[in-house]
Amino acid sequence: MAGVGLAGAGLAGGFAAGNATARTSAPSAGPAEGDGAFAFTGEHQAGITTPVQDSLHFATWDVTTQDRDEVVALLRAWTLAASRMTQGLPAGEFGPMSGPYDAPPDDTGEAEDLPASGLTITFGFGPSFFTAADGTPRFGLDGRRPDLLADLPHFPGDMLEDARCGGDLAVQACANDPQVAVHAIRNLARIAFGTASVRWSQLGYGRTSSTTTTQPTPRNLFGFKDGTANITSEESAAVDEHVWVAPGDGADWLTGGSYLVARRIRMTIETWDRAPLREQETIVGRTKGSGAPLSGGEERTEPDFEAAGRGGAPLIDPASHVRLAHPTSNGGARMLRRGYNYTDGSDGLGRLDAGLFFLAYVRDPATQYVPMQNALAKHDLMSEYLRHTGSGIWAVPRGVAEGATLGGDQGAFVGQELFA
Amino acid sequence: MAGVGLAGAGLAGGFAAGNATARTSAPSAGPAEGDGAFAFTGEHQAGITTPVQDSLHFATWDVTTQDRDEVVALLRAWTLAASRMTQGLPAGEFGPMSGPYDAPPDDTGEAEDLPASGLTITFGFGPSFFTAADGTPRFGLDGRRPDLLADLPHFPGDMLEDARCGGDLAVQACANDPQVAVHAIRNLARIAFGTASVRWSQLGYGRTSSTTTTQPTPRNLFGFKDGTANITSEESAAVDEHVWVAPGDGADWLTGGSYLVARRIRMTIETWDRAPLREQETIVGRTKGSGAPLSGGEERTEPDFEAAGRGGAPLIDPASHVRLAHPTSNGGARMLRRGYNYTDGSDGLGRLDAGLFFLAYVRDPATQYVPMQNALAKHDLMSEYLRHTGSGIWAVPRGVAEGATLGGDQGAFVGQELFA
Ligand code: HEM
Ligand code: HEM
Repeated sequence: MAGVGLAGAGLAGGFAAGNATARTSAPSAGPAEGDGAFAFTGEHQAGITTPVQDSLHFATWDVTTQDRDEVVALLRAWTLAASRMTQGLPAGEFGPMSGPYDAPPDDTGEAEDLPASGLTITFGFGPSFFTAADGTPRFGLDGRRPDLLADLPHFPGDMLEDARCGGDLAVQACANDPQVAVHAIRNLARIAFGTASVRWSQLGYGRTSSTTTTQPTPRNLFGFKDGTANITSEESAAVDEHVWVAPGDGADWLTGGSYLVARRIRMTIETWDRAPLREQETIVGRTKGSGAPLSGGEERTEPDFEAAGRGGAPLIDPASHVRLAHPTSNGGARMLRRGYNYTDGSDGLGRLDAGLFFLAYVRDPATQYVPMQNALAKHDLMSEYLRHTGSGIWAVPRGVAEGATLGGDQGAFVGQELFA
Repeated sequence: MAGVGLAGAGLAGGFAAGNATARTSAPSAGPAEGDGAFAFTGEHQAGITTPVQDSLHFATWDVTTQDRDEVVALLRAWTLAASRMTQGLPAGEFGPMSGPYDAPPDDTGEAEDLPASGLTITFGFGPSFFTAADGTPRFGLDGRRPDLLADLPHFPGDMLEDARCGGDLAVQACANDPQVAVHAIRNLARIAFGTASVRWSQLGYGRTSSTTTTQPTPRNLFGFKDGTANITSEESAAVDEHVWVAPGDGADWLTGGSYLVARRIRMTIETWDRAPLREQETIVGRTKGSGAPLSGGEERTEPDFEAAGRGGAPLIDPASHVRLAHPTSNGGARMLRRGYNYTDGSDGLGRLDAGLFFLAYVRDPATQYVPMQNALAKHDLMSEYLRHTGSGIWAVPRGVAEGATLGGDQGAFVGQELFA
């Protein structure tokens, strides 16, 4: 197992050489691109600044035990299983078909012939993990909840469904093959049985952002390029300023980690599809083709909010999404977006339940997310076509150190600093 | 447009050279494998015997107009849009960003930078398309409904949800990139606005079958290989015997077509995951590793239902899924399976809503599907872990002839023989 813990050491942010030796000989039944493995260990958890994969399975759990030791045992078991699955190995040492014949297998098997597929598994702790509904601290974590880890406020227009909100623990599994992402969440749920229970889950396809300048900009379900102005891993100063929690930020155990905000945003695509191209571009503030700002230039040209056209009207509408979300409207605040498109069947009224599962990593949700969401909810022309139906915030700890021993009663685990 | 109608002529069953010229220069934000285009025209609709793609978006519509001409116009428009989208072109001639600035675009844009991705779009007509609930014929189609196109009977244990059943029209969109499959359904829904309304839709990932011997056998969410004994396109005699409707089968307009049965089957994976490996293999009748029958051999060895082990007990349980679904238990009946795994969030009780979206093409549902489903529902050991929650049957017409002119008031369309 130590070998797995060390996989790809020194390659954080890129693809490890891939020591999914157990599986590389089998043909892949999924997409062949991006078969490789990301290192599981490192200063930061993978799945944040690492290149965005093609699919997502996101899930949250409520912890059902009162016992701190059982929670720690769960986090140890999850860490070990995640370190294996991200390297293309089964969740447990026997795998789906080689264990004792009269016991349930320690892996469910549906990813058995598939490569690592760029799987990353990223863990987070929600406000309710620290504090029960009546305000009492849980698991002996008195005083360990970061002040910034507060439930998000109600935003204008929110139509949140309780069954899509919150959760003590959250896991973001991303992979280039949806079956690999689903397999990861399902095996973590299997391992958690009796200790934590799945609260909700969300499948996503078609990333709506890039985290490296080498990834082409994808499109969201409004048909526009999305992620153009995202923070990329190449901008290391911006990553340090806007993504990673630093010493002195208020919760030392979270240093090197981040805050994850999730919003399930339904898009009324049928109404959007009947809006003229002109209106669509005005709402976004960019062209639908190249994604260039309406003030001119190319996709990556900086928008000029002062530029005016005929009659002195600004070329970029002051109530456009890009204008309101831009750092110049938000005291310089930025975020690392990592969302996905989703389509969850239809709504019984002839419309698809489709939209964007918004995921963003920030160093400080109170200054980087809450004011921007308030401004968008109040003024963004796009709001007319959006309904926020799910929501959550989690503290995402730093990564497990390279070379750490995993497994057993003493193994390193994600979030260990919180229990120190 | 004629060029598109002709794309890949003569390559039915394989990838066409791909004349998605409008898009091949843009980088793909999706899986790079299987970028090519399948021919849209041909003797049979694509998406049946053509190699199974990685993802599915399936949808059904109820027709809201009473007007036969409007229905024909819809089918013409759908055929034209499908012929374009399967070749990697936008649904309409202007595309998402080059049309009149004050009109809604004729394509929604989210697939703009993506290749054809092996997209196939397969159309079917349900029983309710021909006959209203009160028994009156619709759209002047008196006497045109095939006798075999009857609503499926109630099967033991069925837990069908009305909102996941039936539909006048069904479309199966399969592609190697989920965004391309979703884009196809969404644009057909946009085109149908005012004439037909989406009834339900289902996303699928991870195919659970192969239709060619060259595709590796995938795994379903029980972790077992699925599709081993499927009919493959190479077995042309079996395809003719079991899949395509032949002259004299009872509905001449359907000659060269097929019947599609869909069943949304939830799998109680959390319970399954606690079953011992021995029990799992007994239920299926095959090994979890190689997929070989429990009577011995390799994946493609013919099962020997007479073989007995210690104490004379049969090696393959008589109530196993494979025994009951095998042709020898069904008067020689076989089917072409083309289903997908699905995961639709969780159920509020800590369990994932996951399973198999079963799709099968048969020449005669009354002999090839109904008796087998009855036998499985009554005797299959697997039934304990399954819940059928959605259902439908559709007549799937032959393909639009190679070289046919599409578009305009006179263009060829899928299902044209029905309206002749
Ligand atoms: C379904 C909902 C949303 C859609 C369809 C959407 C779409 C877009 C698009 C097309 C862009 C321009 C391209 C780019 O730079 O990525 C953009 C930019 C951006 N969006 Fe959104 N967005 C949505 C929700 C949100 C939310 C909830 C937030 C945060 C509260 C947000 C924050 C941003 C930011 C920070 C930018 C970059 C602005 C800049 O620096 O110029 N978006 N979004
Ligand atoms: C979630 C539900 C189901 C699961 C998990 C499942 C799984 C399997 C597996 C693992 C096999 C063995 C490998 C193979 O030959 O493909 C198989 C075979 C088969 N299944 Fe299913 N199946 C399901 C539902 C059904 C249904 C509803 C039918 C039809 C009514 C069906 C018809 C067949 C047939 C015809 C075979 C091939 C049997 C043979 O020729 O040996 N299955 N299935």
